[in-house]
Amino acid sequence: MKIIKNPKEKDLCKLTQRSSLKQNDLLQTVAEVFENVKTKGDRAVKMYCNKFDKVNLKSLIYNENLIKDSAGKISPDLRNAIVLAKNNIEKFHAAQLQPELKVETSDGVFCSLQTRAIEKVGLYIPGGSAPLFSTVLMLGIPAKIAGCKEIVLCSPPGKNGEIHPAILFAANLVGIKEVFCVGGIQAIAAMCYGTESIPKTYKIFGPGNQYVTAAKMYAQNLGIAIDMPAGPSELLIIADNSSVPEFVAADLLSQAEHGDDSQVILLSNNLLVIENSLLALKKQLKVLPRKEIARKALKNSKAILLENLDDCISFSNLYCPEHLILAIKDFEKYSAKIINAGSVFLGNFSCESAGDYASGTNHTLPTNGFAKNFSGVSVHCFQKFISFQEIKKQGIMNIGKAVEILAAAENLEAHKNAVSVRLKYLENDRT
Amino acid sequence: MKIIKNPKEKDLCKLTQRSSLKQNDLLQTVAEVFENVKTKGDRAVKMYCNKFDKVNLKSLIYNENLIKDSAGKISPDLRNAIVLAKNNIEKFHAAQLQPELKVETSDGVFCSLQTRAIEKVGLYIPGGSAPLFSTVLMLGIPAKIAGCKEIVLCSPPGKNGEIHPAILFAANLVGIKEVFCVGGIQAIAAMCYGTESIPKTYKIFGPGNQYVTAAKMYAQNLGIAIDMPAGPSELLIIADNSSVPEFVAADLLSQAEHGDDSQVILLSNNLLVIENSLLALKKQLKVLPRKEIARKALKNSKAILLENLDDCISFSNLYCPEHLILAIKDFEKYSAKIINAGSVFLGNFSCESAGDYASGTNHTLPTNGFAKNFSGVSVHCFQKFISFQEIKKQGIMNIGKAVEILAAAENLEAHKNAVSVRLKYLENDRT
Repeated sequence: MKIIKNPKEKDLCKLTQRSSLKQNDLLQTVAEVFENVKTKGDRAVKMYCNKFDKVNLKSLIYNENLIKDSAGKISPDLRNAIVLAKNNIEKFHAAQLQPELKVETSDGVFCSLQTRAIEKVGLYIPGGSAPLFSTVLMLGIPAKIAGCKEIVLCSPPGKNGEIHPAILFAANLVGIKEVFCVGGIQAIAAMCYGTESIPKTYKIFGPGNQYVTAAKMYAQNLGIAIDMPAGPSELLIIADNSSVPEFVAADLLSQAEHGDDSQVILLSNNLLVIENSLLALKKQLKVLPRKEIARKALKNSKAILLENLDDCISFSNLYCPEHLILAIKDFEKYSAKIINAGSVFLGNFSCESAGDYASGTNHTLPTNGFAKNFSGVSVHCFQKFISFQEIKKQGIMNIGKAVEILAAAENLEAHKNAVSVRLKYLENDRT
Repeated sequence: MKIIKNPKEKDLCKLTQRSSLKQNDLLQTVAEVFENVKTKGDRAVKMYCNKFDKVNLKSLIYNENLIKDSAGKISPDLRNAIVLAKNNIEKFHAAQLQPELKVETSDGVFCSLQTRAIEKVGLYIPGGSAPLFSTVLMLGIPAKIAGCKEIVLCSPPGKNGEIHPAILFAANLVGIKEVFCVGGIQAIAAMCYGTESIPKTYKIFGPGNQYVTAAKMYAQNLGIAIDMPAGPSELLIIADNSSVPEFVAADLLSQAEHGDDSQVILLSNNLLVIENSLLALKKQLKVLPRKEIARKALKNSKAILLENLDDCISFSNLYCPEHLILAIKDFEKYSAKIINAGSVFLGNFSCESAGDYASGTNHTLPTNGFAKNFSGVSVHCFQKFISFQEIKKQGIMNIGKAVEILAAAENLEAHKNAVSVRLKYLENDRT
């Protein structure tokens, strides 16, 4: 991991750049899969499962009993841990529900904002090397709390042709009934158009590889909403001399092991903190099972010495990290200055992996600088706002004249007339 | 306007279809403009203003004095009406600000959700035939309330080469200082990349013609957030025998005059209501300045007789109207059943044009069926959520073990280790 000391201001922007993403020349493939799934439905989905995943599926639908039986296939310890995580995530997300907002803007003009759940949502859960059952909780729980009527879950088959039992257990635990053993582009296409087995959905959530990401962007152009654009995972740590080098090192590595395109950044106002942390990192790296992946990720990574903690926060706001750890004494003072980040971890005992699983916050977060214009997943992502207005007689008498003037100035006479007929009616009413 | 009586259930879905949008073969043009604006900045923007709008602009930046002087160029009545509208919109949108949410999910684990304004936003305000100063209020007010630091407004020059003074007056009133006389694809490209004059923004809002729409979709693929996908404006009215035919007719026409691709739908459980409303419509249409546009829009429009009001609501939820008027006696009872709509108008005196301008709700709303997965503009659209967690010593002792188990089950040992080093540290601490 490269150490950069006191970079000049003009070089800061360059230091926030991510290693460029693999160029996406998948459009042709994505378009073809979408077209075939649209016209041929299940038949096309199965064909692509065979072609891409080398799995022959008789049925795409996961049997309800298989979902329920999954509990017996994982250890009691894992079951209990999943339940603990579920409870914390549920507590934090249930608190996000909002009461109806109602305001009388003028005498007799009542405006309200009410939430409604998006009726049909699709959740994509990656399988393959690591079965991301934690993502089932992170997407399924807010979907349930929001009140989505139809929650469709797609996850690719493992090597044995089945979905990992921990994914099924988590799905069952949060009450998801529609589980489909499909991955990749064909899963996204199916949730976009609907097939004989897989219902059409209106918004698609979840992480995925470059194929899934390209498919979600394609779906977005068709009017399907998506959670957010995706990129490799990343972590920025700001550490001062109150930090613990072993903790900082372990946190950097927990991010670096995700993939060789992951990126970690360490900022400090103290060179010794950086040096000690990197020393600890070297030691810990040696015994890591995924050390080869982590080593590659560390090549894209940097430790930067800056003048003071304010400069560290400024750099972080410029970088817009997905995860941000404030391993500093005065984290309360500085947390208010954070503008762009996905999720923030305060103090020495708030490790990022706790947020990945069980603190209660959501781990589906904006990467690649998108924290400047996107939020992580919350209950709101599964809801829509509808505005209501009730204009009483007194109300239209109060604002009617203004509406007439405004409509006429925008050359919209029929807009004006809709008010005029009412004002005239009320005039006659009174006389 | 065609009357359809008691359609069969299987035909309902077909009746919700919009007239197909013009196929978008603008991609080539959009890509070219974006590339040129990216590499040549202001020079390219001016060139396209000349090419597309036939206007030779010396400077893209609108002089601050010109903005301030705009007040003198519009009538006092219009100024007052704009101020009244501003006050109502401000009241309703200011109420949307949310306090920080903080939850202790487990003993010693504190999670919070805080909002931050998106730092740089771009507002596109159409000019041309109708100067949409009302849209300046609808986008500028929530942007200001959210606390966006940089608010960039682009609007095309009128025939005289200038922005309409009512647009400038509204911009000045809400406190927007960066106004640029640029429209079309080049405006969106400029706010996406930034040029010498026009700042780069992170999220772009506002309606526009097919060029602007295509440019916003293009920007979205580059990672710029947008408010929502766009389509022609539309209105659905549900009327029972408590409705007033003249009001229903005027409301239908106020929507129909927007453009020849607008669509209006009238639903009722009473044929006489439909017949009387259409009779009134015929009369009102004759004297309308924009009657030719309205007449074309009415060709895409339908009046549908259904069995009862519940069926009307069901059809409306299937149609997902941008605007929905409940001109029925029991609107309170039925409004709870509305799932998919942009903005809803309750009772006989709540005309849609009041919401377009001055009731206080936002008029930037999802069209073309997008109300099933998108919301209208609110303060939230100008904000992001950031989650924070502070895990105290007690907290990591409570959830640490579970995180270790979950991380190990997902084959992420470094994630596990980030917890383990802390638990070990605390153990040593105690001994």
